[in-house]
Amino acid sequence: MTDQAPDAALIIIGNEILSGRTEDKNLNYIAKELGKVGVRFMESRVIPDIEQTIIDTVNELKAKYDYVFTTGGIGPTHDDITADSIAKAFGVSVVEHAETMRKMDDYYNGELNEGRIKMCKLPEGAEPIENATSVAPGFVIANVYVMAGIPNVMQAMFDSIKGSLKGGDIMISKEMKIFSSESKIASPLNSLQEKHPDVEIGSYPFVKDGRFGVSLVIRTTGRQLLNEVYEELQYILKDYGEIG
Amino acid sequence: MTDQAPDAALIIIGNEILSGRTEDKNLNYIAKELGKVGVRFMESRVIPDIEQTIIDTVNELKAKYDYVFTTGGIGPTHDDITADSIAKAFGVSVVEHAETMRKMDDYYNGELNEGRIKMCKLPEGAEPIENATSVAPGFVIANVYVMAGIPNVMQAMFDSIKGSLKGGDIMISKEMKIFSSESKIASPLNSLQEKHPDVEIGSYPFVKDGRFGVSLVIRTTGRQLLNEVYEELQYILKDYGEIG
Repeated sequence: MTDQAPDAALIIIGNEILSGRTEDKNLNYIAKELGKVGVRFMESRVIPDIEQTIIDTVNELKAKYDYVFTTGGIGPTHDDITADSIAKAFGVSVVEHAETMRKMDDYYNGELNEGRIKMCKLPEGAEPIENATSVAPGFVIANVYVMAGIPNVMQAMFDSIKGSLKGGDIMISKEMKIFSSESKIASPLNSLQEKHPDVEIGSYPFVKDGRFGVSLVIRTTGRQLLNEVYEELQYILKDYGEIG
Repeated sequence: MTDQAPDAALIIIGNEILSGRTEDKNLNYIAKELGKVGVRFMESRVIPDIEQTIIDTVNELKAKYDYVFTTGGIGPTHDDITADSIAKAFGVSVVEHAETMRKMDDYYNGELNEGRIKMCKLPEGAEPIENATSVAPGFVIANVYVMAGIPNVMQAMFDSIKGSLKGGDIMISKEMKIFSSESKIASPLNSLQEKHPDVEIGSYPFVKDGRFGVSLVIRTTGRQLLNEVYEELQYILKDYGEIG
């Protein structure tokens, strides 16, 4: 296993997710991207726009994980309290970031209203996360990466930081589908998992064209071990149902 | 506000969500359903299939919220460790639930293999959550409601328990769309929010047919106040852009 691989948590900040108004699309994107760079994604939390909750959650998770990502709450309106709250979590002030002010001023032809200036204020010591989609940046402070909630803006921000993330061995996976029921294959599957504690074997039932099946996903970091366990899996389940 | 309304948290258990293999569909469903019954949804966590993590998370959240819901990990295979972990969180054993054993035995014509018997084992003192979709039940123990991860099974389980949830005043909402930019309306919006601290005003930018707009969502529990704030919002923003 990759116990030494850097790990990460994601904090999704926004009342609109908890009220059901908006369906989060960021977790799945970040999950896949972290997988590609070898960072182990260990936890995600969805929390409301409440200052103390943001402070407490950021403080807890930044101490626990190598990387913390947040989405949401960095816009210009009153309900965008993420930058202020994260500054408080770090015990610093928010300050107008000179380079960001200059860029925003350029972009808006000198029309910097209160809302736009708010988006130029970063916690002291934070570095902006420039991106291809929005002139208003996200920011990084210590191991906390603060990004927008709007999926395409978040993705642009993530793209511009992912090269700087230090990952460990990358988890690779192989999937096998078998037309059988989970309860029938549970016992041989359990034996295989016990034999290979360093490999993660996931079992996910599905229904396709009215037929019950199970998708088995093997995950580990070594190609050879992955292939060996895959072949063993095929062998031990060959009499339990059609594989394919 | 409905500070006295019962509150809830959701724990989404499953490596497949954190690896990005599966996109969670349950949070949004549960968010909307809790809204309908007047239970305030305050937090969600996505955690891996690790026993100690499940135990710690359940223990923390069941003490903090009136209701805790979990999804995932109650199937027949080795990676389904939710029932065992929740039993440990409550300091009890898992035991074969007699009535569930009888039903499963009926359903499978007496063919109860190891995997099926596993799904009949509930923490001591738990009550099964019968449902219209699967013969294997979820279960409730104290204030913790344990449901399947597969969306249609989870929904059937939630349907069969939601009548028993005690809710408070139901949050109602009204939405107004304006073709303007968030940064332009930030200042008047902020004044309105300060004037009405008992009303939640959310601001969500969108792009439609190449035009920038903002969706403003007012939420509170009283119809009259909701309508008043909505009219005020229309009035203060009438010169900022097309409303509609």
